[in-house]
Amino acid sequence: MRLSARNKINATITGITRGEATANVELDAAGTRLVASITVEAAAELGLTEGMQVIAVVKASDVMVAVPD
Amino acid sequence: MRLSARNKINATITGITRGEATANVELDAAGTRLVASITVEAAAELGLTEGMQVIAVVKASDVMVAVPD
Amino acid sequence: MRLSARNKINATITGITRGEATANVELDAAGTRLVASITVEAAAELGLTEGMQVIAVVKASDVMVAVPD
Amino acid sequence: MRLSARNKINATITGITRGEATANVELDAAGTRLVASITVEAAAELGLTEGMQVIAVVKASDVMVAVPD
Amino acid sequence: MRLSARNKINATITGITRGEATANVELDAAGTRLVASITVEAAAELGLTEGMQVIAVVKASDVMVAVPD
Amino acid sequence: MRLSARNKINATITGITRGEATANVELDAAGTRLVASITVEAAAELGLTEGMQVIAVVKASDVMVAVPD
Repeated sequence: MRLSARNKINATITGITRGEATANVELDAAGTRLVASITVEAAAELGLTEGMQVIAVVKASDVMVAVPD
Repeated sequence: MRLSARNKINATITGITRGEATANVELDAAGTRLVASITVEAAAELGLTEGMQVIAVVKASDVMVAVPD
Repeated sequence: MRLSARNKINATITGITRGEATANVELDAAGTRLVASITVEAAAELGLTEGMQVIAVVKASDVMVAVPD
Repeated sequence: MRLSARNKINATITGITRGEATANVELDAAGTRLVASITVEAAAELGLTEGMQVIAVVKASDVMVAVPD
Repeated sequence: MRLSARNKINATITGITRGEATANVELDAAGTRLVASITVEAAAELGLTEGMQVIAVVKASDVMVAVPD
Repeated sequence: MRLSARNKINATITGITRGEATANVELDAAGTRLVASITVEAAAELGLTEGMQVIAVVKASDVMVAVPD
């Protein structure tokens, strides 16, 4: 499956915080910490575990740009 | 200003495609290409230009996780 | 690639409106009209054309629920 | 109230998973399974229950397009 | 139609910038300037014009919190 | 840090509902109730508490427009 989303960042899972509905997946992308909030269902279905190599995927319209002061 | 968004990725602007309403800002983040679709107004107000050091900011609920086949 | 996004809807492309930065892709999903606003770059890279069979993909946190009056 | 969101999909609620803050509402849309992650407050206020006819609403900028391999 | 989205802000349209695909609708909400990027199709269908009273609608998962320095 | 997000609304925190992964932050913006769903991690890191003055931040592409009937 090829996807229109423009942002695909290779990362390693460093931790998962699971609630009843939502799981926060913590990722390390070459030294940058990322967090993905997904459904607990998706985390289970994909078999996400610490140390796993994954891809953080973000639609271009969800990316903001900040300029440091 | 400290922001709740969990994902802050240092990047360099490598190109900007401007339409009437939307600008696609292309970024290089340590070798990973990113694209941010923002308003042309925001691109102008921030003075975005090629070569500028910026931060790509993404809310955790906008990050998906993909597992390679 | 397996993706955490929970919503995957089979659809046929019925039209594409291209601006400089954004393309609105109109879809027919078993009689329901859908619209996806993506970058023109993604539309070109995926070779999107009318009549093509695609999948509309939406993250669960981007779906609202409405109750008819 | 008429809404700018372009995607309105008729569906039936097939299940609800409630956490403290978020509820995942599972939907059946003519055989396609959908999931909406909304606040538990919204689920309660709308009186969402299994079997209820609702509309899944998605903004066009939140829809991605995937092309099967 | 009752909607799960938690944020509904009364506003007046103060300007519209139309591209081919996207329209940026500028709003005044009791002195606070807001901008909504929607499809040009939606802007036309809703008959949006300057001076019109509308409601800015935002899903709770799309709202960030910032703390001033 | 200057941010591309177009919508910045001054507000006071009126309540916080914390789950394991997500916190719903209730806000009062000059009489309009807002809700922000953010990670519990962000709520803790920013030290969010009732009565605090904050800014609700929303990307323009996440704002819909509704027209009352």
